[in-house]
Amino acid sequence: MLVEPTGTAGCSSPLAREPLSAEQAGELARLFKAMGDPVRLRLLSLIASHSGGEACVCELSGVFDLTGPTISHHLKVLREAGLISGERRGTWVYYRVDPDALRRLSAVLVPGETPVVAG
Amino acid sequence: MLVEPTGTAGCSSPLAREPLSAEQAGELARLFKAMGDPVRLRLLSLIASHSGGEACVCELSGVFDLTGPTISHHLKVLREAGLISGERRGTWVYYRVDPDALRRLSAVLVPGETPVVAG
Repeated sequence: MLVEPTGTAGCSSPLAREPLSAEQAGELARLFKAMGDPVRLRLLSLIASHSGGEACVCELSGVFDLTGPTISHHLKVLREAGLISGERRGTWVYYRVDPDALRRLSAVLVPGETPVVAG
Repeated sequence: MLVEPTGTAGCSSPLAREPLSAEQAGELARLFKAMGDPVRLRLLSLIASHSGGEACVCELSGVFDLTGPTISHHLKVLREAGLISGERRGTWVYYRVDPDALRRLSAVLVPGETPVVAG
């Protein structure tokens, strides 16, 4: 018996399977744009890799040769894009990465996955 | 016999495994930034999903309600980021997506893979 392969679903990224709709592209571009800055990518990675998956803003600012307001601006861009969320506890704000946002991005790029676009 | 899991390599994205270096972040941010625009994301997807993995610029411009120079500008940004390459044949330029660039991006986001950063 000959088993036909079921299309290219297993070996091409969703980006290559069919053209993104304007809505999908708009939603995803917002996330990619927020990640399109070296400081923001490093902040995202510092937060995601921090023990417990969360980092205090007080631990993030010392890593960069940047002012507090500049770090705050970048954190705000990440937060507004939905890539991280912040919670104030006492004096400090603690940030954690939204795993769904990262999953949505990787699903567009990775073979065999279906892009998930938030309504 | 008890087999210990070998760390969290299989269940966290490289972004979450350890902080990105400034060099890694700079290289990756350049790619994410180029993808941080809805028109560019749709162009990328149109090219990648086109039959034969390549699309003529003449087939791309009709999809958008944008002028030729605007489409050319977006294609240039994608080309300069290394996400696509163009080849002139006769009257038209034909574009294809660089699979390595997409792989580099997905490797940062996807559990169990190692980020590949171009030297």
